[in-house]
Amino acid sequence: MGLVMAAIAAAEPAVERVTLWCHTEREAEEIGQRRTSPRLRVFELDARVHVTPDPKRALLGRDADDRPADMIVNAIPSQFIREVWNRLLDACPNDDRVLTQRVVSVSKGLENGSLLTPLGVIAEVTAQQPGWSRDGHRRPLAVLSGPTIASELARGLPATMVSASVDDGLAIAAQHTFTTNYLRVYTNDDVAGVEVAGACKNVIAIAAGIIDGLDAGMNAKSALLARGLAEITRLGVELGADRETFFGLAGVGDLATTCFSSEGRNRTFGEALGKGESKDEILERTDSVVEGVETCRSVAEIAQREGVDMPIVSAVYAILYEGLDPREAITRLMSREQKRERIG
Amino acid sequence: MGLVMAAIAAAEPAVERVTLWCHTEREAEEIGQRRTSPRLRVFELDARVHVTPDPKRALLGRDADDRPADMIVNAIPSQFIREVWNRLLDACPNDDRVLTQRVVSVSKGLENGSLLTPLGVIAEVTAQQPGWSRDGHRRPLAVLSGPTIASELARGLPATMVSASVDDGLAIAAQHTFTTNYLRVYTNDDVAGVEVAGACKNVIAIAAGIIDGLDAGMNAKSALLARGLAEITRLGVELGADRETFFGLAGVGDLATTCFSSEGRNRTFGEALGKGESKDEILERTDSVVEGVETCRSVAEIAQREGVDMPIVSAVYAILYEGLDPREAITRLMSREQKRERIG
Repeated sequence: MGLVMAAIAAAEPAVERVTLWCHTEREAEEIGQRRTSPRLRVFELDARVHVTPDPKRALLGRDADDRPADMIVNAIPSQFIREVWNRLLDACPNDDRVLTQRVVSVSKGLENGSLLTPLGVIAEVTAQQPGWSRDGHRRPLAVLSGPTIASELARGLPATMVSASVDDGLAIAAQHTFTTNYLRVYTNDDVAGVEVAGACKNVIAIAAGIIDGLDAGMNAKSALLARGLAEITRLGVELGADRETFFGLAGVGDLATTCFSSEGRNRTFGEALGKGESKDEILERTDSVVEGVETCRSVAEIAQREGVDMPIVSAVYAILYEGLDPREAITRLMSREQKRERIG
Repeated sequence: MGLVMAAIAAAEPAVERVTLWCHTEREAEEIGQRRTSPRLRVFELDARVHVTPDPKRALLGRDADDRPADMIVNAIPSQFIREVWNRLLDACPNDDRVLTQRVVSVSKGLENGSLLTPLGVIAEVTAQQPGWSRDGHRRPLAVLSGPTIASELARGLPATMVSASVDDGLAIAAQHTFTTNYLRVYTNDDVAGVEVAGACKNVIAIAAGIIDGLDAGMNAKSALLARGLAEITRLGVELGADRETFFGLAGVGDLATTCFSSEGRNRTFGEALGKGESKDEILERTDSVVEGVETCRSVAEIAQREGVDMPIVSAVYAILYEGLDPREAITRLMSREQKRERIG
């Protein structure tokens, strides 16, 4: 997703320069030379995107006279955001130029332990670092989300996103930066809703994949989508999010693509579970991060803390961490004694 | 769907007898002998289901001493409900036994001209017929809906439905009659919401199919699902429906299965449109009713009457009835000038 976002930003005439930071020298070298990723078909990274493993160069520019990055796009798996940002910050200590840098995140998940969203982690890490925060100044943060499978964006297929921030100016700046003739970006001020929906949908998608693996059909998967939407909405509202967000692009839109696209990692992971493979077997042969596996722990913990009933998340948790048989879990979900439909 | 509902009812021990009425002698003969339909794989109609083209026998039983049908299941394409019910009623004039018969409908659409839902048509027709109504007595009507592709139900795959009626007793009776170990039925009292959602989803599914036909991808289709849900919710709320219904099984659940299942007739019809075939060509080679084609006219008319903005329905209408090119329609939908996300 980082690659694709870099390419989209580079295509915007108002954007002067795009630098893609990679977490290892090897990765930077590979991407810098190949200008693509094996996970993306028919994609070529714009020649104007500079690829570097050097955090200082990525954030502050080539030298002391260069203009620092104005907008940082965070595209890091949720459990690694803290570690990576600490590395970035350590590389640019006490540099006033970083104080005004705005952050736009496309990560979707929750950090285990802290139970923080990606923006929550970034806010915490930057606030703790001298030079990256100043009394009375809150770093402008935004989240971009929506039904956006990276490989489809890479092919220029039409898509939509939501740009959410408490800072209207940043929401609009991100909207302008990433709007193209095939990608429409809408603003929204419900950061909590967009981030909670983005995190939870990956857990529901694992359940959707299990239904696929069990060959249980579209009726069951669509019922799961409706029930899943209801339970993540309940959690979001409890956490102060706006209900409406869950019925928009970042809510039901993203949930649908995650549950129905054959390419989704979380759905694919669930499908393998449904076919009888074990979690460890699947993760061992998967070279990318399956966000829902770790995020499920945090969502289950928050649901318990808030007293929110999330039967699908609980079922996925029991399958992943308590050895519950997927078939048994689906049977239990389908046979819950409940007479009236309950949504909110 | 009528076949499948008959089979499900016949499997309920409390149900004494099930009669399947067919609208022609030929159809009754074929189904009576083959006990299946070419549209359903691996399905065999329970031997206990009696198949007849005789309306009087279906409604009142074998002879004057026989018990009349207690519950009538309406599974008729929307534009034919009035005509068929008039035939049924004409066959049993002034018979007091029909006064207490309860009707459960699984039809999804709106009658052109009257703009009535299936239950609305049945209420009107039966009220006009002497012997089928009595002052002060309202016939109990219910609608069954949800993500229920008939061919999956026929294979016994897990599914859920909503049984909605203003008459609690009938909602519960339908729930008991059609609940099986693979089909869960939930009650709901929002008849308007369930019927409006069921009608509109077929129109949105045509648009989803067009996206498939144009190979525009899952991101676009999921965005369409989110936007489609928002616009049918706006219409439903305007018509007195409960918002919650649209976020439940009969709303987003049914919409998802209709937009994503490869088997859906409306989606398949839209896909052919997207690939460049004309409406008439497709309908000519299709042996089943594509509800969304006719329902689109009624939905567009109601939206205009109520002053509800329904851009997707308008686009489908323009494609079907004003010769708009599907590719042009999708481009217009994707590029609507709109800065903030708006749901309700």
